[in-house]
Amino acid sequence: MEQSDPTLAPVPAPMHDAFFSFRLLATDGDARRGEIATAHGLVATPFFMPVGAQATVKGLTPEAVRATGAEIVLANTYHLMLRPGAERVAALGGLHTFMNWPYPILTDSGGFQVMSLSQLRKVADHGVTFRSHIDGAIVELSPERAIEIQNLLGSDISMQLDECLRLPASRGELERAMRLSLAWAERSKRAFESAPRCGALFGIVQGGDDPQLRLESARALTAVGFHGYAIGGLAVGEPQEVMLHTIAEVAPALPAERPRYLMGVGTPDDLLAAVARGIDMFDCVLPTRNGRHGLAFTRFGPINLKNARHADDPRPLDDASSCSAARDYSRAYLHHLVKANEMLGAILLTMVNVTYYQELMAGIRAAITVGNFTNFCAQTRESWARGDVAPAQGI
Amino acid sequence: MEQSDPTLAPVPAPMHDAFFSFRLLATDGDARRGEIATAHGLVATPFFMPVGAQATVKGLTPEAVRATGAEIVLANTYHLMLRPGAERVAALGGLHTFMNWPYPILTDSGGFQVMSLSQLRKVADHGVTFRSHIDGAIVELSPERAIEIQNLLGSDISMQLDECLRLPASRGELERAMRLSLAWAERSKRAFESAPRCGALFGIVQGGDDPQLRLESARALTAVGFHGYAIGGLAVGEPQEVMLHTIAEVAPALPAERPRYLMGVGTPDDLLAAVARGIDMFDCVLPTRNGRHGLAFTRFGPINLKNARHADDPRPLDDASSCSAARDYSRAYLHHLVKANEMLGAILLTMVNVTYYQELMAGIRAAITVGNFTNFCAQTRESWARGDVAPAQGI
Repeated sequence: MEQSDPTLAPVPAPMHDAFFSFRLLATDGDARRGEIATAHGLVATPFFMPVGAQATVKGLTPEAVRATGAEIVLANTYHLMLRPGAERVAALGGLHTFMNWPYPILTDSGGFQVMSLSQLRKVADHGVTFRSHIDGAIVELSPERAIEIQNLLGSDISMQLDECLRLPASRGELERAMRLSLAWAERSKRAFESAPRCGALFGIVQGGDDPQLRLESARALTAVGFHGYAIGGLAVGEPQEVMLHTIAEVAPALPAERPRYLMGVGTPDDLLAAVARGIDMFDCVLPTRNGRHGLAFTRFGPINLKNARHADDPRPLDDASSCSAARDYSRAYLHHLVKANEMLGAILLTMVNVTYYQELMAGIRAAITVGNFTNFCAQTRESWARGDVAPAQGI
Repeated sequence: MEQSDPTLAPVPAPMHDAFFSFRLLATDGDARRGEIATAHGLVATPFFMPVGAQATVKGLTPEAVRATGAEIVLANTYHLMLRPGAERVAALGGLHTFMNWPYPILTDSGGFQVMSLSQLRKVADHGVTFRSHIDGAIVELSPERAIEIQNLLGSDISMQLDECLRLPASRGELERAMRLSLAWAERSKRAFESAPRCGALFGIVQGGDDPQLRLESARALTAVGFHGYAIGGLAVGEPQEVMLHTIAEVAPALPAERPRYLMGVGTPDDLLAAVARGIDMFDCVLPTRNGRHGLAFTRFGPINLKNARHADDPRPLDDASSCSAARDYSRAYLHHLVKANEMLGAILLTMVNVTYYQELMAGIRAAITVGNFTNFCAQTRESWARGDVAPAQGI
C-alpha cells in the first residue's frame, strides 16, 4: 500500500500504552470477551456506549446513566467544538468534570457529524471546512485540530478524523475517501503522540461496501499502529447483510490484541451479529432517540408505547428488568406520558432502553465467558420473536 | 348569609376526620407550624406542593421529587379527567399507583384550569361546560362530578369546584362568582360525604380583591364546615400587595384549627409573606416552569442561566444546597445545557428549584418552631438582595 502523502515523515513505532490497555479474556467462535483499562477506570468488553453528543446523554443525569450499567459514554467532537468550545471545556477542568461523569469517555472526531449535520462542507487534503449548523459560522477541522480538541476535552479514547460517505457510493469516491482517511490517520497519530497527555487513539477503517478497499484500509492502519481500530462508514444506508459481510471481512484483518469498535451501530440484533463477527465496542443513538419517541427496547422486542393498546395495560414493561423504570410504572402510565408529551416519558423510556442495551451486553459477555454465545443469541432472538405477551384473561 | 339554593337539603354536621387531621404545633405571630396526617402519610406545615398537573412533576421521577424534600404533590383534575380519564386511573389502581407516588396527593377541582386553559366555557348553576384544549370535545364539569373524579383518582385532599375569575373584575362579577362557588361548596360537601371513601375536602374562599365578599365567603364556608380552607382567585393578575392584603383579611376569619391553603402561589417572597399572614399550604408552577426556562431559584435570589456571564463560571449554583444538581455541576455546564436546549438542563434546574422551595419551607418551619420567623424572613430576603456572589479575582 502506498503512503497517501509521500511528504510525510516516517510513521513512528507502535504507541505507548500508558493509560490504555486491552486484555482479551475469552473467545467463543469469533466473539470476544475482554477488558479495556483507562485512566478513568475499567470497561468490560464487548460494551455499548450511550451517546452523550453535547456532553449529556439526553434525558439522563450522570447517576442515571451509571445506574443503567454503562461504564463509558461517547461524546461528540463536532458538537462540543461548536458549543461550548473545546478550549472552554479545558479551562473548566475537562469534559469529565464538565459533565460530572468521572468514568471513561470516548470522543469521536467529528467526521460523521460533518457529513450528517453540517452544510456546505468542503473536503480537501488539509481537512474539512463546513458551516456550523448552530450559527452558520465557517469552521475548519483538520486531523491535527481534531486531536487537539479531543486532548482539550480530556478524552480517554480519541478517534482520528476521517471522511465518512453515505452508501451507496461509487468505488472511485469510496477509494478517494478511504485514502484520504488513511493519510489523516497518520497525521492524527503524529499529532496525538506529540501532545503532552496520554490516552488512546483509534484508527478508523473506511472503504464503504467494497471488500478490497476495506482490507487495504485495515492493513494500512494496522501498519501505522493504533490502540484500537474502528470500522466507520457503516449503518449509513446499506442493508444489514452488507454491513455484516463487511465486518466479517474486516475484523480478521485487524490485530487480535486490539479492541475493535463498530461506529454508530445499532439495533439489538446488530449488536449480537457484530459481536459474533469479532466486534468489541459499539455506540448508537437508537436507545436514547427511540426512548424520546415512545419506543421501548425490551426482552420481548420493541414496544411502541404510543399505541393505544397500552392505554389500560397495568403491566410494567418488564418486571425482571434491573431498571426501576421498567418495573415500577405501568404501560398505561408510560402511554399516558408519551401521549401527553411529558418529559418523564422520554426520561423513563431512555432509562429502560439504555438499561436494556447494557443488560444485553452483560448477557453477551457472560455467554462468551462460558462458551454459550451462540445459544444466547438464539434464545435472545427467540424472546424478541415471541414478542410482547398479552395480558392474562380477565385483566 | 343566605343559602345560595334554598331547595338544597340542610348542610350536614362537620365532617368525619378519619384519614385526615391537622395539628397546630407552634405559632410565631400569625405564622403557624403544624402537621397534617393523611392515609398516605404525614406532611409538615407550612408546605409547598410541586405541581404534577398530568400525573407527573414535569422533568422529575417520583424518586427525584421525593429527594427534593417534597412530602406531597398536587395533581390537576382538569388535566386528568381529559387525559387519561379518571375512570381509567381508577381501574389502574388510583393516582398514587398510576404515577408511582405513594405519598400524599392533593387534587384541585379543575376550576382554575377551566378558566385558564379551555375555550368556549359556559358557567351555569349546574356547573361548567367547556371545550377540551386537547381534542376540542365538549366536556361538562359539575361540583358533584369534580368530587367523583377526585374520588376516582384517590386523592388525599380534594378541592371543591369553584369559579375563578381573573383580576381586575367588577364587584358584580366577583359577587356572582363567589356566591356560585359557595353554592358549589355545599353541593361538593354533600357529594363528598355520600361517597364511599375517606380523605379530606377543602372549601375555597372566593371574592376577588373585595374584602367584604372575601369575608362573607370565608364565614359561609366555615359555617358549612370543611377539613381545610383554601384562598382561591389570587395571583391572577393583581399586585402582590393586593394579594397580601386579601390574605390578611381572610385568614383570621378562617378556623384556626384547620389548615389554610393559598392556591397557585407563588414566588419565594410570596411564601414568606403569606406564611407571615397565617397560610399553611402552597402550590405553584414557578419552580418547575422556570426551571425549564433556565431560571434557578437559590439562596442568592434568582439566577438566569441563559445569561452569557455564566459561560465560563466554574462555580456550582450553591455548594451548600442539599441538592446534588446545585452542588455537582458548574454554572458553565448548566448554561451550556440551557443554550443547547438539552433536557438535562430542565431536569437539573427543576431539581434545584423544587429543592430550594422545600429548603425554604423547611427553614420557615424551623424558624416558627423556635419563634424566630421574623428574623428568618429578614435574613432570607437579605441573602436574596445581596445576590449572586461574583467569582473571586483570578478565576
